[in-house]
Amino acid sequence: RRVGHARKGLARWVIMFLIGTLTAMVAATIDILISLLAGWKYGVVSAYLVTHIDGTNILVPFIIWLGIDVLFVSIAAVMVAYGEPVAAGSGIPQIKCYLNGVKVPHVVRIRTLICKMFGVTFAVAGGLSVGKEGPMIHSGSVIAAGVSQGRSTTFKRDFKVFRYFRSDHEKRDFVSGGAAAGVAAAFGAPVGGVLFALEEGASFWNQSLTWRIFFASMISTFTLNVLLSFWQGKPWNLSNPGLINFGPFEGLMYFSYEIPVFLLMGVLGGLFGAIFNSINYRLSIFRLKYVYSRYSCVIEAMIVALVTVTISFLCIYLSDDCRPITRDMKNSLQMFCNDGEYSSSASLFFNTPEESVKSLFHDMQGSYSVTTLTVFCICYFLLACWTYGLSVPSGLFIPSLLTGAAWGRLIGTAMPYIFPEATLSSPGIYAFFGAAAQLGGIVRMTISLTVILMEATSNITLGLPLMLIMVLAKWVGDIFNHGLYDIHIELQSVPLLNWDPPPMSTTIRAMEVMAHPVTTFNMVERVGRILEVLKDPRVNHNGFPVVDSYVPNGLTFGIFRGTILRSQLIVLLKNKVFSVWPNLYDPHVPVGIEDFRDDYPRYPDINKLEISELEKDCMIDLRQFMNPSPYTVSKEASLPRIFRLFRALGLRHLVVIDDSNRVIGIVTRKDLARYRFCTKNGKVGIEELHISYT
Amino acid sequence: RRVGHARKGLARWVIMFLIGTLTAMVAATIDILISLLAGWKYGVVSAYLVTHIDGTNILVPFIIWLGIDVLFVSIAAVMVAYGEPVAAGSGIPQIKCYLNGVKVPHVVRIRTLICKMFGVTFAVAGGLSVGKEGPMIHSGSVIAAGVSQGRSTTFKRDFKVFRYFRSDHEKRDFVSGGAAAGVAAAFGAPVGGVLFALEEGASFWNQSLTWRIFFASMISTFTLNVLLSFWQGKPWNLSNPGLINFGPFEGLMYFSYEIPVFLLMGVLGGLFGAIFNSINYRLSIFRLKYVYSRYSCVIEAMIVALVTVTISFLCIYLSDDCRPITRDMKNSLQMFCNDGEYSSSASLFFNTPEESVKSLFHDMQGSYSVTTLTVFCICYFLLACWTYGLSVPSGLFIPSLLTGAAWGRLIGTAMPYIFPEATLSSPGIYAFFGAAAQLGGIVRMTISLTVILMEATSNITLGLPLMLIMVLAKWVGDIFNHGLYDIHIELQSVPLLNWDPPPMSTTIRAMEVMAHPVTTFNMVERVGRILEVLKDPRVNHNGFPVVDSYVPNGLTFGIFRGTILRSQLIVLLKNKVFSVWPNLYDPHVPVGIEDFRDDYPRYPDINKLEISELEKDCMIDLRQFMNPSPYTVSKEASLPRIFRLFRALGLRHLVVIDDSNRVIGIVTRKDLARYRFCTKNGKVGIEELHISYT
Repeated sequence: RRVGHARKGLARWVIMFLIGTLTAMVAATIDILISLLAGWKYGVVSAYLVTHIDGTNILVPFIIWLGIDVLFVSIAAVMVAYGEPVAAGSGIPQIKCYLNGVKVPHVVRIRTLICKMFGVTFAVAGGLSVGKEGPMIHSGSVIAAGVSQGRSTTFKRDFKVFRYFRSDHEKRDFVSGGAAAGVAAAFGAPVGGVLFALEEGASFWNQSLTWRIFFASMISTFTLNVLLSFWQGKPWNLSNPGLINFGPFEGLMYFSYEIPVFLLMGVLGGLFGAIFNSINYRLSIFRLKYVYSRYSCVIEAMIVALVTVTISFLCIYLSDDCRPITRDMKNSLQMFCNDGEYSSSASLFFNTPEESVKSLFHDMQGSYSVTTLTVFCICYFLLACWTYGLSVPSGLFIPSLLTGAAWGRLIGTAMPYIFPEATLSSPGIYAFFGAAAQLGGIVRMTISLTVILMEATSNITLGLPLMLIMVLAKWVGDIFNHGLYDIHIELQSVPLLNWDPPPMSTTIRAMEVMAHPVTTFNMVERVGRILEVLKDPRVNHNGFPVVDSYVPNGLTFGIFRGTILRSQLIVLLKNKVFSVWPNLYDPHVPVGIEDFRDDYPRYPDINKLEISELEKDCMIDLRQFMNPSPYTVSKEASLPRIFRLFRALGLRHLVVIDDSNRVIGIVTRKDLARYRFCTKNGKVGIEELHISYT
Repeated sequence: RRVGHARKGLARWVIMFLIGTLTAMVAATIDILISLLAGWKYGVVSAYLVTHIDGTNILVPFIIWLGIDVLFVSIAAVMVAYGEPVAAGSGIPQIKCYLNGVKVPHVVRIRTLICKMFGVTFAVAGGLSVGKEGPMIHSGSVIAAGVSQGRSTTFKRDFKVFRYFRSDHEKRDFVSGGAAAGVAAAFGAPVGGVLFALEEGASFWNQSLTWRIFFASMISTFTLNVLLSFWQGKPWNLSNPGLINFGPFEGLMYFSYEIPVFLLMGVLGGLFGAIFNSINYRLSIFRLKYVYSRYSCVIEAMIVALVTVTISFLCIYLSDDCRPITRDMKNSLQMFCNDGEYSSSASLFFNTPEESVKSLFHDMQGSYSVTTLTVFCICYFLLACWTYGLSVPSGLFIPSLLTGAAWGRLIGTAMPYIFPEATLSSPGIYAFFGAAAQLGGIVRMTISLTVILMEATSNITLGLPLMLIMVLAKWVGDIFNHGLYDIHIELQSVPLLNWDPPPMSTTIRAMEVMAHPVTTFNMVERVGRILEVLKDPRVNHNGFPVVDSYVPNGLTFGIFRGTILRSQLIVLLKNKVFSVWPNLYDPHVPVGIEDFRDDYPRYPDINKLEISELEKDCMIDLRQFMNPSPYTVSKEASLPRIFRLFRALGLRHLVVIDDSNRVIGIVTRKDLARYRFCTKNGKVGIEELHISYT
């Protein structure tokens, strides 16, 4: 026993180490591939641009650019549409559901990881308004699920290691570590990763789990740092903690009296975010209705790529915003500018989104004209809005940051004209806070986002305005709609539990919440009856109360003795653990914990078990397998109390008993998720949602 | 209802804002006072040193130094010993207990805060090996408790505000915010503060609470920054996020191949920490036995001050480690060195501990001789060990960091001799990791400490080695003894619940854990009986089951209907909510929630209530006041399951019921804390501790 305990403890650390390392390797691969592909693309196009700039053949570089981008994007779209549709988007909504205890099919498969990895590479290299950060969080989670289970469903391989972690609970813990490692790799923010995992996943603050999650994040940041430093030829330098690096923010400083302006930007961020979410919501409904075939998904992605390139090209072509070259620039274009100058419009449109963000944060005062920023901001806002939800892997962080950075910088450029007397901070600081406000207004995360951005800038002094901006953006945005991730979760009718019980629900009692006619089993039950119940499509619970002396009366369902899971029953039936007359004192249990683990998480289909008519009359003694002392709740308990039990203990069902310990109902997550606080049309109250019981 | 909800929500934010601001103001006051007092002291002494250096009168500056230090320290000691003894030490063990749900008397009183504030100022200015950071955490907690309750017991004032927060649960939430604000002010580490509060206090991850705690931390860091910037005459510069500033670490970098050396340092830190704790433990036992009168506490503190000054003076006087002056130095002493040189020994001993830490982190290669560092390290280790536990407010962080920085720098100085070929990082980096290892070895905190140190250096790349060092220091140290805070908590026999249930305890059932003969009340109970039970010194529970149809049989104690608290009963008796023949359908309840709140947390003494003989025959209907659906547990439930319920839901007692809903026992925190995993003398097992039932 003692040795087993220590070994399991060590195995947990080893798995977290592997999760961190592998996540970093995936991140490094994506990063390097993108920089190679994008570098090649911009090289080719800019070479053609230089040679064709003066003639009428300006269409040649445009068509080449268009060709490359549409090709790249269609590769990404085909991988997702035909490979694994769940790999589309950022994956954060799916991971949120998973960590909340709701399973989304295929979400942590290796096939999904592969489609995600290469899909995001081609989507970013193909010039779409997408980032690679969100997909990293999803990738980290898949890696975690794969490593911790020691087997792969995609490859049908079982390595027979870590078998003691084959349970929902353990797997979820590791997946939260993987998500954290993903954040850590994406932003170089290990603490932010931990807080992300806590904010989205944890219900019970588990000291040692948090510590292990932190370890995975640290390893991930560190490994990525080493790998990218090697790739850049400075092997020991360790200057790349994350995929997106906001550049040196240490010297940049703001002044206390600028804070009111930043707060105003927070409000703006909330408004813009709400508009973004509203447009994207309508678009998603449209997609659900009309664009669902694989074929049309790919076509739509190609159209978006085409439009993106066209707009970018037009903006660069029509712009006359020339600036002198003062620093070493990546992919700078001269276009129609004089020698020694570059087109500032091109430095925004003719670059990967991350490079553009950095330029907006760090370029000197006066690097962009007001027109350039305004045009870029509006175009990018609309493009990003159209792009999120396409059938390609696409992170939402970078497009949001970029849009916000553009209008933030616009404000920063305007400030000296509004307050000519004041000493003001650089427009880059405004760009940064604008980016934060826009991102906060769209995703509405708070704690983890603040910490992630603080870590990405390595500047604690930016913390307070950052936090206030996040609060305001969330408050303002929440007046109009939910965060974009939540909108996409709601579109899929997933019973997600919120953090807090809905207010004004204290008068709702367990009796009202519970599902009422309960299917119970006797302690020694007929095989035929179990089979019948499990096959009944109307009985969709995953746990059943085991009772004593059940007299059917329609109100109570027997004296409560324990609970048994659907999966346990299936394994018992599969292994034929029954006999005609079960010997109650038989110490030999013919099925062990390994039998349950080996089948996890894909238990056999009940309809495919072969049980003969004769066997149906045998009996199973459930007492040896049931949980004899599960959590229960009295029928008088209030909804908030039940809610706290579910959240704090991560329950999936809870048996409701009366004063005499008789079963009278059962509460599941879906029963709880039905109650939601609503403030529609000025009225407040509790609404009962309809949730599809699938 | 709805308005009340919104108002309470807003009030919570306002309180957190006040907590942050006030904590920062206290921190700024302490900091400025110390710098004034210490500046004056070092000025006077160094003036005398310069004039008396060559004569035989060298004793004159020594005696002046001695006089000032002993005076300062005795002021601190008198404030604590005669003012408020609980203000001694760092206060972290007490706050840990408080957040864990155990009340330590007087710990959050304003009188304690005042003694702590001025005590720590004089203790630090008096040259003891103490820091002001730990006391800041305690100060923040006191402020939080005071502000959130809207009244002060010390000043006997009730401002009649925030009365809806007068409950254990709400108060504890705010105190955790105050502790976080304290950490944030002390180290400029707002995220570290949040994680400290979570690590020490929270059981259930509460999204909105965490967010508010973060807000308090941010406000605290920011306000302190503004205040100190004003004080330093650079009002808008914002360069002082915390009291202790490790100086610019941004440029400092290590090389991946140095990590094994850092790991070794982690092991060393664990060993040194264990030695420190062991010595301090023996010393504390000695103090408990022999040094308990107020008088002797003050004398001991004066002796320590005397010894500290003597050792410092001797080390400076006897040292011949001279270095050329290369930077602007605070309090540098020339002593016997040539012009343009300073005594490097004096730069360690003749400075506040924080300045010395900074010097060790940032002074160039070769600033200290091996002898100087060795002597300093040993002296400081022993002095710090003797000092912690004195009757003065004293932080443990800075002395630990300083000791560790000394031996870390020693290793850093030795490295070029061991590996002459290698490119190595500066000795300051080694000093930093040594400091981290020593601190980790002594206090054994992990997550929050790593984050605090990461934030204090603003360098994420230092994170991985830092974390590994913390893990190793904890593992190695835990082989020998517990963390110093836990040692001091154990010395006070406080029933603190650990994070995880003890391993190997799954076979222990509720039946074995529970306290067995339970005192229960009938739903309609005689006043005389209630009075009798509450006055009975053997009945020390704070909650009682309310039952139906109790037939005394020594095994079960009636059918369970709800629970009622001791405090509720006292308030009911005080307000004489009873009648000869209670009308069960009387809708008018003569006592409201305000009556319970106004008495919180100091309910009247039961022995002082005046109940006449006639009243004793009256009846109370408890059904209107009891909690009708508390959490319960079946007698078969295992210890880990009960443990999780207590931890996750912050319970203080749990009623154990049998299959027929009859009360058979009650489990309290003390019953759980009795079981502890022990590995003494090579044997493993569960030990039952004796806990004093006071």
